[in-house]
Amino acid sequence: MNYQSMTKEELLAEREALQAEYDRFHAMNLQLNMSRGQPSAQQLELSMKMLDELNSSSNMLSSNGVDCRNYGLPDGLPEMRAMFAAMLGVDASNVIVGGNSSLNMMFDFISCAMTHGFKGELPWAKQGPIKFLCPSPGYDRHFSITEYFGIEMITVPMKSYGPDMDIVEALVSSDERIKGIWCVPKYSNPQGITYSDRTVRRFANLKPRAKDFKIIWDNAYCVHDLTDTPDQLLNFYEECEKAGNLDLPVLFASTSKITFPGAGVAAMAAGPETLAVFREHLSFQTIGPDKLNQLRHIYFFKDIGGIREQMKRHRAILAPKFQTVSRMLREALGGRGVAEWTEPNGGYFVSVDVYPGCAKRVVALCREAGVQLTAAGATFPYKNDPKDSNIRLAPTSPALPELEQALELFCLCVKLAAAEKMLGEREDSGE
Amino acid sequence: MNYQSMTKEELLAEREALQAEYDRFHAMNLQLNMSRGQPSAQQLELSMKMLDELNSSSNMLSSNGVDCRNYGLPDGLPEMRAMFAAMLGVDASNVIVGGNSSLNMMFDFISCAMTHGFKGELPWAKQGPIKFLCPSPGYDRHFSITEYFGIEMITVPMKSYGPDMDIVEALVSSDERIKGIWCVPKYSNPQGITYSDRTVRRFANLKPRAKDFKIIWDNAYCVHDLTDTPDQLLNFYEECEKAGNLDLPVLFASTSKITFPGAGVAAMAAGPETLAVFREHLSFQTIGPDKLNQLRHIYFFKDIGGIREQMKRHRAILAPKFQTVSRMLREALGGRGVAEWTEPNGGYFVSVDVYPGCAKRVVALCREAGVQLTAAGATFPYKNDPKDSNIRLAPTSPALPELEQALELFCLCVKLAAAEKMLGEREDSGE
Repeated sequence: MNYQSMTKEELLAEREALQAEYDRFHAMNLQLNMSRGQPSAQQLELSMKMLDELNSSSNMLSSNGVDCRNYGLPDGLPEMRAMFAAMLGVDASNVIVGGNSSLNMMFDFISCAMTHGFKGELPWAKQGPIKFLCPSPGYDRHFSITEYFGIEMITVPMKSYGPDMDIVEALVSSDERIKGIWCVPKYSNPQGITYSDRTVRRFANLKPRAKDFKIIWDNAYCVHDLTDTPDQLLNFYEECEKAGNLDLPVLFASTSKITFPGAGVAAMAAGPETLAVFREHLSFQTIGPDKLNQLRHIYFFKDIGGIREQMKRHRAILAPKFQTVSRMLREALGGRGVAEWTEPNGGYFVSVDVYPGCAKRVVALCREAGVQLTAAGATFPYKNDPKDSNIRLAPTSPALPELEQALELFCLCVKLAAAEKMLGEREDSGE
Repeated sequence: MNYQSMTKEELLAEREALQAEYDRFHAMNLQLNMSRGQPSAQQLELSMKMLDELNSSSNMLSSNGVDCRNYGLPDGLPEMRAMFAAMLGVDASNVIVGGNSSLNMMFDFISCAMTHGFKGELPWAKQGPIKFLCPSPGYDRHFSITEYFGIEMITVPMKSYGPDMDIVEALVSSDERIKGIWCVPKYSNPQGITYSDRTVRRFANLKPRAKDFKIIWDNAYCVHDLTDTPDQLLNFYEECEKAGNLDLPVLFASTSKITFPGAGVAAMAAGPETLAVFREHLSFQTIGPDKLNQLRHIYFFKDIGGIREQMKRHRAILAPKFQTVSRMLREALGGRGVAEWTEPNGGYFVSVDVYPGCAKRVVALCREAGVQLTAAGATFPYKNDPKDSNIRLAPTSPALPELEQALELFCLCVKLAAAEKMLGEREDSGE
């Protein structure tokens, strides 16, 4: 029954029942974690054989004859650049392979913009106050980077097809202080939304007022499908090329959630001018990336086909977890008027919008009963969710029985917090 | 015979003979490289077994129980921090382990200072023009970083015991725009000089005018001894502690020249306040370093004792090369009055000061005859050696026969360039 339709007495009774159930959970002393987008131990096992691929008998030369043990090849191995090119939908010449973290490359890219800048414009740090667009809910670590560099963040609402492009276009074309936007275009963090073709084309055809505007296209989940009907993301780089807008895109990907988060390989791609600036930056920053780990990945996967096979194995582990989330949310919360959520075809997260004003309360209730969730507000700039409603669920790490237990508690807390809130609201309105 | 004592006729005859010998070399179409501080292929073989140490049967947990395949441990594995602590002479709690490049960590440290700063002072980029001291000859990639960030570089002469500390103390205590100094304190690049105890103590007791002054202590060659009488470097961090100056030191090291330049592990250490600022920086930049490569190193070396054994094996390969350099320079150039050079007890380089005004000519002559040397001037800020005299020899990479051939040509070019120069000078002076 929809909580909104309940009489005060019904709602009081419901709260009492929920509280009793919550107390029962509390007494169980659970220790579960649904807060972090980490592969499970079972997933990590999928890549263990990779460690055997590179050993003391292996060929240490890249395809272009460079000894991968020594210095050199700052852009990465040709075969690794080709693999990321296939993942990102660009030519290998547009790819720079980095270390183990695409976040690190994004941070360094923003840092480069702050101290050196693009297109002959002043470095961002010398332009006075500047701004970034932050489609929200979004990825907290993106927002943290812009906040760390003192860049003002403007929240842009997420729609089912991606960021609200009317707002993006209006802001970007009128304000030269807006220097960029954070995007997770496929299976977005946390909603699992994939940008529609029209959204991608509108991004590619943006006419920013700022000459040094950049679209950070964090394609973290580009091969992370979970169903037989995976989302299809339009090739952003090609659309930018058609639009004559190759100064806009800066693409990122990594194998963190393909092989090992702690020992993967990251890469970025961009148009020629952007790449030249960042390549110069890198030429001062390092003599070159870890090439043996690249070789190890190449020997394990051979090419993009090997990656796709690996992702099927991940899917076999992850799909049941995401199906469980969908089923349990539907069963416990469907039709109650206390929450809305996403049912993504891929990625690492499920996004739940609980009854407004209840997200912090839900996270606190769960924590007190032994289940860690991502902090409420984390999915918005300055960690401030104006509706206090969005919660990110990360179902990949726990084993299925633990996941079910955590979700049972979560749904209970969503209902309990909503009942509390609604009762309070009725009292406030003198009902 | 000393060229200075030769008559004009003797010098003309000498030049003619040298030119004939040079032409003979030129006709050989050599292709040799003495320009880069790279380990040889033979040295790289010393670490091949490390690749077998971490395989699909290995224990993936750090000593504190963290799965090294997943996210986490931003400061690095406890056992890896301990190993670098032993190398750098600090407590493990002062160590942060990074990726595969200490240069990258230094760059990021300077970048952090530029955008965020220390001790409540403005970020360096917002303080107006600032300066860095550059003991020279020094490491070109250090100087490139400060130049890239627009920091004015002030050359400080190197003495046999380290930088000229009278000058360092006078500048640092009087000019608050001077924010730091680049140091390679043991087996310096390129001279192979180790700072004397007194020099280290004077550094530790500096009283900089700038509250945010940093001493970049790049201890790249801390375990890279080549003789039975290795240099001993005083513990800089301890001296800073005694002097109540723990805001000064920022120490760096890596295994690039212990295992693999392309796949080693780097680390840094600093006093608590400096470390806290940089650790915060890192917390936005990355979720953590490559922990499996750390584990691989730990399994291979066990502890600092394993490192020391490995360095003996490197020494067995490198010492004959350095002995060859010393012998050939002595034989060919000794007593001629055309060059001075260092005979280091460790490190990766030999520094040669050729007859003033001849360094570029020597490098060009060698290049034309097929031997690559480090560019003349590279060892000074802005690539400008005011005396055009210093040349860095990197004898580690070529095999011994190639090294001998390259050195033979080098010595010949040193003499030829000197003879040319002296003849020109005598003409100028109307002799």
